[in-house]
Amino acid sequence: MVDRPLEFTLEELKRFPSVSRVHFLECLGNRAKADHKTVQQTHGLTSCSEWTGVLLSALLKEVGVQKGANWVVSEGAEEVKGAGSIPLAKAMDDCLVAYGQNGEPLRPQNGFPVRLIAPGFEGIYNTKWLRRIKVVDHYYMTYNDYGHISKDPKVAALNLQWGPKSVITFPSGGQKLPGPGVYQLTGLAWSGGGAVRKVEVSTDGGHTWKDAEIRGQIHRMAHTRFGMTWKWEGQECVLQSRCTDELGQVQPTRAQLAKFFNQPADYYHTHGVPGTDNMIQPWRIAADGSVSNAIA
Amino acid sequence: MVDRPLEFTLEELKRFPSVSRVHFLECLGNRAKADHKTVQQTHGLTSCSEWTGVLLSALLKEVGVQKGANWVVSEGAEEVKGAGSIPLAKAMDDCLVAYGQNGEPLRPQNGFPVRLIAPGFEGIYNTKWLRRIKVVDHYYMTYNDYGHISKDPKVAALNLQWGPKSVITFPSGGQKLPGPGVYQLTGLAWSGGGAVRKVEVSTDGGHTWKDAEIRGQIHRMAHTRFGMTWKWEGQECVLQSRCTDELGQVQPTRAQLAKFFNQPADYYHTHGVPGTDNMIQPWRIAADGSVSNAIA
Repeated sequence: MVDRPLEFTLEELKRFPSVSRVHFLECLGNRAKADHKTVQQTHGLTSCSEWTGVLLSALLKEVGVQKGANWVVSEGAEEVKGAGSIPLAKAMDDCLVAYGQNGEPLRPQNGFPVRLIAPGFEGIYNTKWLRRIKVVDHYYMTYNDYGHISKDPKVAALNLQWGPKSVITFPSGGQKLPGPGVYQLTGLAWSGGGAVRKVEVSTDGGHTWKDAEIRGQIHRMAHTRFGMTWKWEGQECVLQSRCTDELGQVQPTRAQLAKFFNQPADYYHTHGVPGTDNMIQPWRIAADGSVSNAIA
Repeated sequence: MVDRPLEFTLEELKRFPSVSRVHFLECLGNRAKADHKTVQQTHGLTSCSEWTGVLLSALLKEVGVQKGANWVVSEGAEEVKGAGSIPLAKAMDDCLVAYGQNGEPLRPQNGFPVRLIAPGFEGIYNTKWLRRIKVVDHYYMTYNDYGHISKDPKVAALNLQWGPKSVITFPSGGQKLPGPGVYQLTGLAWSGGGAVRKVEVSTDGGHTWKDAEIRGQIHRMAHTRFGMTWKWEGQECVLQSRCTDELGQVQPTRAQLAKFFNQPADYYHTHGVPGTDNMIQPWRIAADGSVSNAIA
């Protein structure tokens, strides 16, 4: 489905205009359960790097995409191929064929010599050790796609994208506040839907919310730091954060998500959410300052 | 010269509002000579990181700076103390007492637990292992200050700040182009005077200049990537870049600097520039594609 199938060496890829962009990666397995004690367990499967490479659109223009093409399949070089299908609209928008990470060549475990970066999409679509991109008319049901892509082509693409998400990292589960006083409450927010527009924090279990400060740069589809000067008086309380992204999408509570999927409110304590989990994460501060997972 | 001398533990510093900012560091020793073969030798003593910490101004407000204070002296914990004097205006503007680098705690060799970051100032003023900041009426002539600070207090502060600077990193000395064709010429620009406003590139020995693309984010007092799609026809030529910063300062040629300091044009081939060296760095491309230092 292209005019001129082409192969590129790494040197040839580096002769295309390069871009450097900050994007998060997140595994679908990143989900909070009641028996998770720390933020590493609830949210640890995400990272954020500066990726350097060629826009996939530049390569697709070079080969000449034909009418009727709607998806691309990216294939990795490892034994299971690591193939995944992404919509052509995404491929032409902001996907990168990346050869650099944080100013260095990609390391072997991160996909050397090149990997696909599909900003905001589930981690598994960011194909490591990228060896082939195939332009096709319909999504394939590859090993990686299986269970991920909706069979309804109208909603298929949206299944791949992370919703707005955030988590308070200090204070968080397993930490202990030494005593009442002023603290810098800090955390991370991100969304597959674009830039973080707002992060709100509640220190009273969700009754009232206050805008947090955005600290540092906001990049699209990237971890964004937030913080708030917070005075803890020593009482038991529940802290949580809520992200709104540039599309206006708002991070849901566990109860909202359970209702949406027509499940009992405590269903997600032991079962996974269908698809990506972007529920609000509450932390409980006990009177002695110890912090624990409030969904327990 | 303060109302309330205070001591802070690391935990107490972390209770102040934190900021994260991207800034370069550069050693005064970073200077191009004719016998330097690679960009590592001409420009290798600079780096760029995201620093996290407390604004020094927040701490100075906490202690209450009195009338008559004009400089601060920062002192490190190592045996030579690493003390340096910086103007109070700089200290109140954008200096950081940093405890984090690139999202991690400072490492021991970078000044753990805290170091001073004086954005855009000579590296030596970014005191590692910071243990004390003293507010004073006049600059001290510490070991580190000696030879750095002008004895004329009116110009003393400006002696510490890097001018606009840039260098082409690809292609650069010691590299070899495999043959004629299209390449991505890339490099870095920075200035102690603020954000990079423009980078120009000449591929004909300085006769004509063309604006390069800024690639990635521009941060104040930070390395800024630039690039240009460049077609090499196979002829011998000289490449160079020129940075203009937000103050309108333009990076000088070697000849301009020699004239300014009233020295012979080839003086800097073997001698150092008085103060910081921000001269334009030319690279010669030979007909066989090999790249060498064109100031030789």
